[in-house]
Amino acid sequence: MGRDILCVQVFTVGKIEIIPLGGIGEFGMNCMGIRFGDEMIIVDAGMGFPEETPFGVDISIPNFDFLEEYRDDLTAIILTHGHEDHVGALAYILKKFNVPVYGSRFTLALAEKRLEEFRMLDDVLMHRVEAGQKIKVGVFEVEFIHASHSLVDCFSLAINTPVGTLIHTGDYKIDDTPVIGEPYDLKSLGRVGDEGVLALLCDSTNATVPGRTPSERAVIPAFEEIFEQAEGRIIVATFSSSIHRLQIVIDIAHQFGRKLCVLGRSMQRNVEVAEEQGLLKIPYGTMIDLGDSRALDDDEIVYLVTGSQGENRAALWNMATSTYKGIEVDKGDTVILSARIIPGNEKSISRLIGHLYKRGANIIEEKRRLVHVSGHASQEDIKIMVETSRPKFVVPIHGEYRMLFRQKEFIKNHVAGYDDDNIVLIENGDVLEIDQFAAKVVDKHEFNKTFIDEESMGEIEYDVIRERKKLAYGGAISLVVTVEKGTHELIGEPQVTFQGVAHIDPTNGFSDQARKAVAEAIGEMKREHILDRSFFKETLRIYLKRFVQKELGTKPVIVTTVVEV
Amino acid sequence: MGRDILCVQVFTVGKIEIIPLGGIGEFGMNCMGIRFGDEMIIVDAGMGFPEETPFGVDISIPNFDFLEEYRDDLTAIILTHGHEDHVGALAYILKKFNVPVYGSRFTLALAEKRLEEFRMLDDVLMHRVEAGQKIKVGVFEVEFIHASHSLVDCFSLAINTPVGTLIHTGDYKIDDTPVIGEPYDLKSLGRVGDEGVLALLCDSTNATVPGRTPSERAVIPAFEEIFEQAEGRIIVATFSSSIHRLQIVIDIAHQFGRKLCVLGRSMQRNVEVAEEQGLLKIPYGTMIDLGDSRALDDDEIVYLVTGSQGENRAALWNMATSTYKGIEVDKGDTVILSARIIPGNEKSISRLIGHLYKRGANIIEEKRRLVHVSGHASQEDIKIMVETSRPKFVVPIHGEYRMLFRQKEFIKNHVAGYDDDNIVLIENGDVLEIDQFAAKVVDKHEFNKTFIDEESMGEIEYDVIRERKKLAYGGAISLVVTVEKGTHELIGEPQVTFQGVAHIDPTNGFSDQARKAVAEAIGEMKREHILDRSFFKETLRIYLKRFVQKELGTKPVIVTTVVEV
Repeated sequence: MGRDILCVQVFTVGKIEIIPLGGIGEFGMNCMGIRFGDEMIIVDAGMGFPEETPFGVDISIPNFDFLEEYRDDLTAIILTHGHEDHVGALAYILKKFNVPVYGSRFTLALAEKRLEEFRMLDDVLMHRVEAGQKIKVGVFEVEFIHASHSLVDCFSLAINTPVGTLIHTGDYKIDDTPVIGEPYDLKSLGRVGDEGVLALLCDSTNATVPGRTPSERAVIPAFEEIFEQAEGRIIVATFSSSIHRLQIVIDIAHQFGRKLCVLGRSMQRNVEVAEEQGLLKIPYGTMIDLGDSRALDDDEIVYLVTGSQGENRAALWNMATSTYKGIEVDKGDTVILSARIIPGNEKSISRLIGHLYKRGANIIEEKRRLVHVSGHASQEDIKIMVETSRPKFVVPIHGEYRMLFRQKEFIKNHVAGYDDDNIVLIENGDVLEIDQFAAKVVDKHEFNKTFIDEESMGEIEYDVIRERKKLAYGGAISLVVTVEKGTHELIGEPQVTFQGVAHIDPTNGFSDQARKAVAEAIGEMKREHILDRSFFKETLRIYLKRFVQKELGTKPVIVTTVVEV
Repeated sequence: MGRDILCVQVFTVGKIEIIPLGGIGEFGMNCMGIRFGDEMIIVDAGMGFPEETPFGVDISIPNFDFLEEYRDDLTAIILTHGHEDHVGALAYILKKFNVPVYGSRFTLALAEKRLEEFRMLDDVLMHRVEAGQKIKVGVFEVEFIHASHSLVDCFSLAINTPVGTLIHTGDYKIDDTPVIGEPYDLKSLGRVGDEGVLALLCDSTNATVPGRTPSERAVIPAFEEIFEQAEGRIIVATFSSSIHRLQIVIDIAHQFGRKLCVLGRSMQRNVEVAEEQGLLKIPYGTMIDLGDSRALDDDEIVYLVTGSQGENRAALWNMATSTYKGIEVDKGDTVILSARIIPGNEKSISRLIGHLYKRGANIIEEKRRLVHVSGHASQEDIKIMVETSRPKFVVPIHGEYRMLFRQKEFIKNHVAGYDDDNIVLIENGDVLEIDQFAAKVVDKHEFNKTFIDEESMGEIEYDVIRERKKLAYGGAISLVVTVEKGTHELIGEPQVTFQGVAHIDPTNGFSDQARKAVAEAIGEMKREHILDRSFFKETLRIYLKRFVQKELGTKPVIVTTVVEV
């Protein structure tokens, strides 16, 4: 298995290994290793939003440690597009494995903004590539196929290997009339299909949704109607990465003679990057800053804001509950929630809407008006993808197991020639081996995600989270016992301090009771047990634990310190 | 304002006060005070499921402390029906205010099971009432109107007061063909309407849903089809309180010659109570226990189980991920999720479905087949309610502000004669004063929910939760410093113990650094500061906090103990 691309024709023996590090069996953290012989490329390095936020965790990233065994094989990281769940872990993987990165101009621009925050920009090799381009990375040849999605400048990848061609769809929808850029490049996909595709790694996010995903353009009529009718201010909340949507809002604001003011850090950053790159076209004089917006009449302004998910610190939440830089939602305002509800955010969005209603705003939700479309392939888009590329094997990626399964079920039932043998369900950590004859999981790495505290940019270990969960559940008691060195005679009274322990009333003298109980317990202990330092300490801990459980019915963490003087 | 019911005709002056203690502006914890003069009744005493579960909280209940000022006025608790969000806090309110309780036979049976757990049954006066019955409670006369809902034996209340009649809908839907019992008693409602209704307190849970809510019977055809087709075992997960649904599953099991086995504690309890009361009709020989179920062929058995919300300890979760008393979901099983997704449970349900797919089960979700209907009034049911009772004022209850608002919006736009003046939005803690002329909020109590730890059945104070959140976020460090009594000279080294503190590597010697840093800090402190005990302690805490933040980038809680010997 040589590194020379000429070998492609010679060696058709050997197998490709597909090793997902994230994004399969869960949302987010999309990352996949593709390996042939002693060469391995990584597709995407995304982050996720874990449920452990109460425990000081901000984001999760794939556990890159298990790439250690492939360290010498790694040759490149290929980015499909610039969404955080595909590029958000880039800095973390590059810190460990500094290999060249390939991506589109816009994807790299977003990624570079993040790398700057880590002061890593000078140490990393970034290669800008364009749709239609082919690059060679050792034994692999990667062709970048233009993909339509809610973001712009996105790719599907055709990865030519000695065993055959893999297609990695990235995130995509088959949009025939996107707002910015070209439709999905089905022509190139079809050509690759004609040449023969070994396996299709296919986005499953919307695999439970029947029909076609509407074009990004589909929201325009509803926006026009709303702008037509609105007499007060208009506030549009959407994902800051939905670049097509931003263009639509800009265009319609211009069309209806309103100025546009962008609020929220990520929204301002993305608008800036997309405009710099000529992707967003902003008519001269349309964009104004916050100060100037205040001077305008209500029917002359549109605010484009972050916070569509009811995030507590975003612009819209502050505007709805108190004030955001002096701007408040008020009676007569029209608020357009131009985004889907990300699972898990239902409650906070409902609360946000409650606050907006209280302020007297008119609220447009995507459930009631077509003000949002998905960026992901629905079932009929998936069918087009499979029928155009005609792969030997299909491997559903990007989604919870439920979505992967539903993609398999749909293809089996709706595309001729596919059944249980050639649609393969895998999970994070699996090693899927593919050759001309079969695709099967031959190994499983233990899969763990890594928790990150963004302030320190450091990893938080599982043990730490486990301890924090215990502290959260029952609080903590610090017990300090002072004894004489050598004899271990108790000196003075034990000291106890409570943090987050329930059912302690300042008036009920529980501290005194606990102190006395510990002192008595020591009085009753055998001398040799007292003299054994660690046994003594542990016995005290267990004793106090039982005492607290009996008296208060709670289970705090008990930290014992023995002072010898 | 006398206590005699005769006064009704004489005194039409005076005002009714409506004081919601829970359930308005949020889901759950439904509880409302209704007061005239010096008399007050309470409608329902429900519990809620708060988001604070990681912090040792199991349930939330209304803060009954603020009823203290009305202690002498309280005359009764009236229960509309037996769902936990209407009766789950009964024991807690009765512990503080032991007044008589009125409810239907089934409602009281469920409530009594809970009171038994608190060993309170002997101390409480429970009055069983029936639909159509009227009772007098001081100045109030309460008529119990039969209501249809997903539970059975439910009431709407017509509460006659000296100022006029209030209707409290309870939870309801207008079901013309329920499975168990009679349709909603629109005739009685209409009669009360004819006599004149001052205010309608109306369930808003489904106020965002257009049309009519389908009858409980509507799920039968889908169930029949599924039973017709299923060749393996059938597992039905639903809410244990959905008694109509249980009856349907029992009937269809019988019809298709399958035996029924009930799994999960709450499911077994509710089936038992409902059967005892003659509400559930179980054909002889249909119900079998777990042991006997194992002997049957796969096409001879139905398991009726808890866990439709993906709850981690429920029967279905265990059957899907490991085993529940020896029963596991397996290839060929059909699992029917006959329940809605309660907001907040999306992720766990999606995970559950993933596990079920992995086991090879066929899964029927309510999104794809009509295997679940709501128990709450949709918009057209609300219209029937308003048009039949024709109240002067409408007060939306039961729901987040968003739902309350949407009920108001719907009635304004679809029922003649209602506008902003006679549809009144209130929130928990408000005091709404109503008379013939107006309904307005005249006072606001501070509204707090009370957190309960079910193991100890005790309240957890807000301060405790606040401390636990801090512990959860950054962990804790216990710092112990020993000094000589009098001189406060440092004896030995400071001791530090870490719990849940991130970025400490056993090999990086951080403990030593911290110890040394504290010792040095003490060395540099002024003598008078060391001698001031509390100043000394606080200075050490702040010093270590800054040191840790600088070195590790984290913010643990620091507990300092100074030992003087």
